[in-house]
Formats: sequence, C-alpha cells, structure tokens
Amino acid sequence: MAIPCPHFISSAKAAMEAGLLIPSSPSSSVSVILSQDDLKKIAAYKAVEYVESGMVLGLGTGSTAKHAVARIGELIRQGKLKNIIGIPTSTITHEQAVSLGIPLSDLDSHPVIDLAIDGADEVDPYLNLVKGRGGSLLREKMVEGACKKFVCIVDESKLVNYLGGSGLAMPVEVIRFCWKFTAGRLQNLFEESGCVAKLRTSGEKGEPYVTDNGNYIVDLYFKKSIGDLRVASDAILNIAGVVEHGMFLDMATTVIVAGELGLTVKSK
Amino acid sequence: MAIPCPHFISSAKAAMEAGLLIPSSPSSSVSVILSQDDLKKIAAYKAVEYVESGMVLGLGTGSTAKHAVARIGELIRQGKLKNIIGIPTSTITHEQAVSLGIPLSDLDSHPVIDLAIDGADEVDPYLNLVKGRGGSLLREKMVEGACKKFVCIVDESKLVNYLGGSGLAMPVEVIRFCWKFTAGRLQNLFEESGCVAKLRTSGEKGEPYVTDNGNYIVDLYFKKSIGDLRVASDAILNIAGVVEHGMFLDMATTVIVAGELGLTVKSK
Repeated sequence: MAIPCPHFISSAKAAMEAGLLIPSSPSSSVSVILSQDDLKKIAAYKAVEYVESGMVLGLGTGSTAKHAVARIGELIRQGKLKNIIGIPTSTITHEQAVSLGIPLSDLDSHPVIDLAIDGADEVDPYLNLVKGRGGSLLREKMVEGACKKFVCIVDESKLVNYLGGSGLAMPVEVIRFCWKFTAGRLQNLFEESGCVAKLRTSGEKGEPYVTDNGNYIVDLYFKKSIGDLRVASDAILNIAGVVEHGMFLDMATTVIVAGELGLTVKSK
Repeated sequence: MAIPCPHFISSAKAAMEAGLLIPSSPSSSVSVILSQDDLKKIAAYKAVEYVESGMVLGLGTGSTAKHAVARIGELIRQGKLKNIIGIPTSTITHEQAVSLGIPLSDLDSHPVIDLAIDGADEVDPYLNLVKGRGGSLLREKMVEGACKKFVCIVDESKLVNYLGGSGLAMPVEVIRFCWKFTAGRLQNLFEESGCVAKLRTSGEKGEPYVTDNGNYIVDLYFKKSIGDLRVASDAILNIAGVVEHGMFLDMATTVIVAGELGLTVKSK
C-alpha cells in the first residue's frame, strides 16, 4: 500500500482563511499561537472548500466535525452555497444542522452521497482511521461508506504510526445482551497485542454509555499493533454480538491535518 | 469439505422412544403416520439423549427446539437429570424454561456451554445451517458459538442441497437506522444470485418485526446458490448496519433428521 503524498499550507495562511488571524501589513512577521480547537477549526474550514452547491453532504460528528457543519450553515446563510442536502451521522449533528437551517435527509432517500466531512480519533500513514470515541461510529460508517469522497479532518495529535498506536480506545459497538461475554471474546481475540476490553460508561454513576442505536460500546486498548487490519476487522465482525467496530479502512479519500506549522492535505 | 456420514434409526423405534407409538406385540406389523410436528418431536427426544446431569445447556428457540426444552424439563421433574443449567436463546425460550422449572443462567456467568440443542431452517450436506426464521438468530449464534457440542434437530423438509436452496428466507438482522439503505446494499451484494431483500413484518398492520435486541430483520430470497459461504458471510458482516446473519457455518457438530422412514444422525 503506497503512502499518500502530502500537500502543505502554512499555518498563518490557513488561520487567516479560518478567520482566526487578521492579516496585518504584508511585510510584518506573523506569530501564531493556536489552540487544539483552533487547529480543528482550520482543518474544518479547509474541508468545506471542497463543498459545492447542489451536493448531498455527509455531516460528521464530534468536536472537529461540528466546525465544518457550522461553516456549511454559515455559507448557506450567506447564499454562497445553495441546494445542499445534509445527511447527519448522529442525533447531535442532526440537532446542530437543524438549528443552522441546513436542509436534511437520510440514506434511505439519498443512498449516494457526494462528499462527507468528518473527524477521526486516529489516522495512520495509509489514511486508515479509528473513529467512534464520540460514540457514533456505526452511523458514521454507514454514511461515509456511501460517499464518493470522504474528507477527514484532524489536528496533528491524531496521527499515529499504526491504528491503536495512540494508546486510546478503539471502540466496538456491541448488543447489550451478554456484553461481558462479547467483551471477553474481543479481549481474547487480541491477546497477543496485550488487549484490554472495557465497557464505556457515562455520567456520575458510571452507567453504560448507550449509542444512538441502543447498543453498548466496548473500548479496546492495545499495547502493540494488531497486525493486518483487514484480518482484524473480519475477525471482530465475525463475533456474534458485535454490531460494528471503529476501524475505517480504505474509506477516507482525503485527510486534512492541521498542525502548529500549517495544514497538510493527504489524498489517495 | 467431507460430507458427514449418516447413521439411521427406523421411524417405528424412534416414534416409540418419543412416546408417539405404543409398542404392540413384537410380531405385529407397525404402520406409522407421523405429522411434521411428530417428526420434530422425535428428533428433539433423540437429541435430549445427549444430555447428562451437571451440564450447562444451550436451549434453542422455535417449533422443534421447544420439544427438546419440554423433554429436558420432564426429565428434570422425573429426577433423571440433575444439576442442569440452561442458557436460553430467546425471551420465549426463557419463559418456557422458567415455566418448566429449568434453572437458568446466561453467557456472562457461563461463557462455556457443554451442549446446545436447537432447530434450523435449512441444513446443507456439510451441516451448515440457516437459522433465524423464528427471529432469534443473534442470541442463538452467541450461545451456539460458545458450545462444545451443538446438536441440531430438524425434520427432513429442512434438508437442502445448498443454503438458500429452499427458496425461503435467509434472515439478516439489521439496525433500524436507514434499514432500506442496508437492505439495498444486501440485495446488490447478491445481485448475481437473483437476490430479493424484504423487511420482515408482523401483525395485521404489517409493522416491522422487532428482534429481542430491538433491531429489524431483512429476509433475503435467492434464485441461485450464493457460492462460497464464508466469502458471503464476510461480505454481509462488512456492511455497516448489519448486526448478524442467519448462516451458521461449521457450527453444528451433529444434525438429527427425522423423516417418514426414521431418524438419521449426521456427525462431524
């Protein structure tokens, strides 16, 4: 698998485009101190440049994607984008899009999507992703699997050498029925990678987190690489009780990475 | 893959063992007219002969399995089976077992099951099965995937040359979210086999049938064989939105077939 060739844009130019920096005189030197959220916003604004009037758009979920959805709403309001139809990937994004006046539909009515824009939790050098720490992996995978183009937007902290390499969770959506049994099977599957499987909880009482589809999430933590990702994917999906996992293999067509030094655009 | 070698028992002997026929004098000729339900009962009673005291048992769902559950309850009541723990595969079987006084547990507490007994909708010559026309494929697959031995019980009408060959439904459990989109992807996947995908409905108003896990079922109908079953299985599971399918590949260790002419026992 060839590593995609990156394209670089300076941080000052990108920040100006995202409205985070007001241009001073051309000769003055510019010092930019950007927060992680600023970086997410810069990546999101860059991604929205791919949007054209008349498109059916997959609208992602999470702290980065919400900047893209907000920007799309802004451009519609300004009349710069017309005849957009949004396909939200979660109830949260649905609500955000409604509040912004973005016309919405669903996959049943629009089974082919022109472009999706969404964040990711990890991006490997081959543009494979881990998604779903925000809990919406299944709907995201359905929508982004139906796209002609999928632009993934991340800040540079999300880049990893291999999926699972951040030491953070790789989520697996499982049915509630005997979830402990399913979690045990998942942990055993990746025993050689030092896998630990934990039920995701939420709230003060530590109640199980429930997805939009009424399922639970088991988070997998790895000490080592899990090897061939396609083999791992099939093995996970073959466990009865598993609904979907958070690996998005060979799905992103472009990844926009915002870092302290600027934007990098990687395309397949 | 080698075709399992069958073992044959006459219908009169089997019917007597299942209490469907009272033995007359040894010399008299016996004419047996058995209904399909009688055949199911004969197969079920034969399967229960595999049960020993102290076993953890997977309890199947459906019109054949219910005879096995009833028989297990009867033997417990008679004191012929002791220290049995049942793991039901559906809420219906759970209720039947409770009413019979069979002690119950679940996969979380008993992740290893000694023996499961369950019916099937189709059985191919290699003991691969289609299950789930009763709607409980996911829990059945979880339980029967955790078994040391899985005895499948059917009447002879369930034997097919290839899975899907009966022309009846091969069920796929899908999440409700954009089920039409998922059904469309399933139908396209098996376009060459003349696949038609239909949402399962129930009741007079034709409301969608809802599984124990809160999902829908899309039934697939084929005109031709779908080819390599393992490839088909992976392709189905790779569709985001699919929770599980009704093919049980390489899971049954024994299949007991009750026919007009007697019982056939096929083992791996």
